[in-house]
Amino acid sequence: MTIPSTLTSQQTRLLARQNTITNTAGYSPGTLQANLLILPHKYSEDFHNLCLRNPVACPLLGISSAPGNPHQITPSRCIQSPDFDLRTDCPRYRVYKHGKCVEANKRDLLDVWPYPFTPQKQLQQQQEEEAGNKDGEQYTAFLIGCSFSFESALHDANLTPRHHLTSTIVAMYRTTIPLLPAGIFTNGTCIVSMRPYREEDIERVREITRPYLATHGEPVDWGWDAVKRLGIRDIEDPDFGERQDFEPGEVPVFWACGVTPQMAIEAAGEKIEGLVFAHEPGHMLVTDWRVEDLERLKGGVGCF
Amino acid sequence: MTIPSTLTSQQTRLLARQNTITNTAGYSPGTLQANLLILPHKYSEDFHNLCLRNPVACPLLGISSAPGNPHQITPSRCIQSPDFDLRTDCPRYRVYKHGKCVEANKRDLLDVWPYPFTPQKQLQQQQEEEAGNKDGEQYTAFLIGCSFSFESALHDANLTPRHHLTSTIVAMYRTTIPLLPAGIFTNGTCIVSMRPYREEDIERVREITRPYLATHGEPVDWGWDAVKRLGIRDIEDPDFGERQDFEPGEVPVFWACGVTPQMAIEAAGEKIEGLVFAHEPGHMLVTDWRVEDLERLKGGVGCF
Repeated sequence: MTIPSTLTSQQTRLLARQNTITNTAGYSPGTLQANLLILPHKYSEDFHNLCLRNPVACPLLGISSAPGNPHQITPSRCIQSPDFDLRTDCPRYRVYKHGKCVEANKRDLLDVWPYPFTPQKQLQQQQEEEAGNKDGEQYTAFLIGCSFSFESALHDANLTPRHHLTSTIVAMYRTTIPLLPAGIFTNGTCIVSMRPYREEDIERVREITRPYLATHGEPVDWGWDAVKRLGIRDIEDPDFGERQDFEPGEVPVFWACGVTPQMAIEAAGEKIEGLVFAHEPGHMLVTDWRVEDLERLKGGVGCF
Repeated sequence: MTIPSTLTSQQTRLLARQNTITNTAGYSPGTLQANLLILPHKYSEDFHNLCLRNPVACPLLGISSAPGNPHQITPSRCIQSPDFDLRTDCPRYRVYKHGKCVEANKRDLLDVWPYPFTPQKQLQQQQEEEAGNKDGEQYTAFLIGCSFSFESALHDANLTPRHHLTSTIVAMYRTTIPLLPAGIFTNGTCIVSMRPYREEDIERVREITRPYLATHGEPVDWGWDAVKRLGIRDIEDPDFGERQDFEPGEVPVFWACGVTPQMAIEAAGEKIEGLVFAHEPGHMLVTDWRVEDLERLKGGVGCF
């Protein structure tokens, strides 16, 4: 299917809700797409701090406005559709329990995130609150910047990422760069994505991606030496995604990657009671932020 | 000399300007003290990005409002004295050239940062601009959070840092945690400060310092294992400051340290033409931010 390039972000979200589309790459160009991370409200302050302390790997584009409510995001400019629903407007979801992915490729979260509550659910919630679990099963959602945004800028500059040309999934690696801890989120490390570029193009690649601070920004490292510096096990065998070919004179260029927050959830493991939801990789939430908003987003979403 | 605990931040700055005080530890309790980094305006965007990408090591409290002007800081709440002068209101300064400290313990910057310009200087500036060096010698200043602020909170909780009790300088170490690069600022690494605590006190120490996100926040790592994880050469031989004693049952607890930006300047080395100024370690700029502002400062100074 050819992607109609004229789709607004609202129209793409509607297609996602109807499960008409899967991978959102190329949809609604000029808008920012988001990684999604939804967790029980009682962990939201720690997770928020984690994002603020690690803004290159976990740049915030928005946070759900009230615990339990799937319809509203702060700042309101991030998502402007009045009928928005966090539980349906991503094409595919994942469910995590105790840090492990227990369900993938889920079409919506309506069964696991009831809202508004039924009378039974309300009673259960009340009992939980009486038992000292103040938050019950109220969820808070975090929308985190995604590299799809800067990839179209690279494409426009004739520096199309290799995986676009070969129709593969970008190579991603675990590194030893620590994710600076926040509350229960300890012992995490950064995940990086890798795109091969010629050494002489690196400064231009850095310049082009630099303004995209809210979607990982410029590379975190580059060159063959960086493989060892980042503690990457084997460049030929990525931890996620697919191996990429290098042409003569090309070196690996590494960016922080939006898979990092999911890995932070895995690292937290048993410390998280209850369910955590995320988007299925590549199946992003398309926001109403536009590339033109990037300059102001640099200062953080609190500024809107 | 006993420190009068009733001094306002404005009064402390005045004492600093008069060179009546040196080390600012303990002055104007309840206010946030700042590390100072002043560099030629043409590098200010790169340095700003460096801070935004590494907010735990380089948390921004304010930036000078206009290139070359030493009198005004944005947000204006950061420094509210109408007669404020970046060149005099720190007790002591350092001068860097090509990444090396060429002068220490300097009382003011009036000779190296002329403002307003003399007619000769104006002519020289004009010639430089004609020669293509648009910014001439205009400086931009960055005010970066300092751990003095959370140390008084630890003291109030009966967790007084060891170096306060022994009247020594906190131990600081180079680590292998990369400072995520921005523009000319590449190959930097994080500096950490270390305070010994008993293992059973660590969660409380983390909780107390967690809200101080704008002044390095909670520890980046802790425990004897962390020494190796952080790539610290020798815990008994700090790279800056003084060796600290460990009592039985105590382990090292590490925080990101405000010396990091100065190390980033050293790492940039020859890439920086012109002079860079910083405060003399321990001789901080006392701001008008108060501990009560920390919650809002979390979202970044752009929010004020």
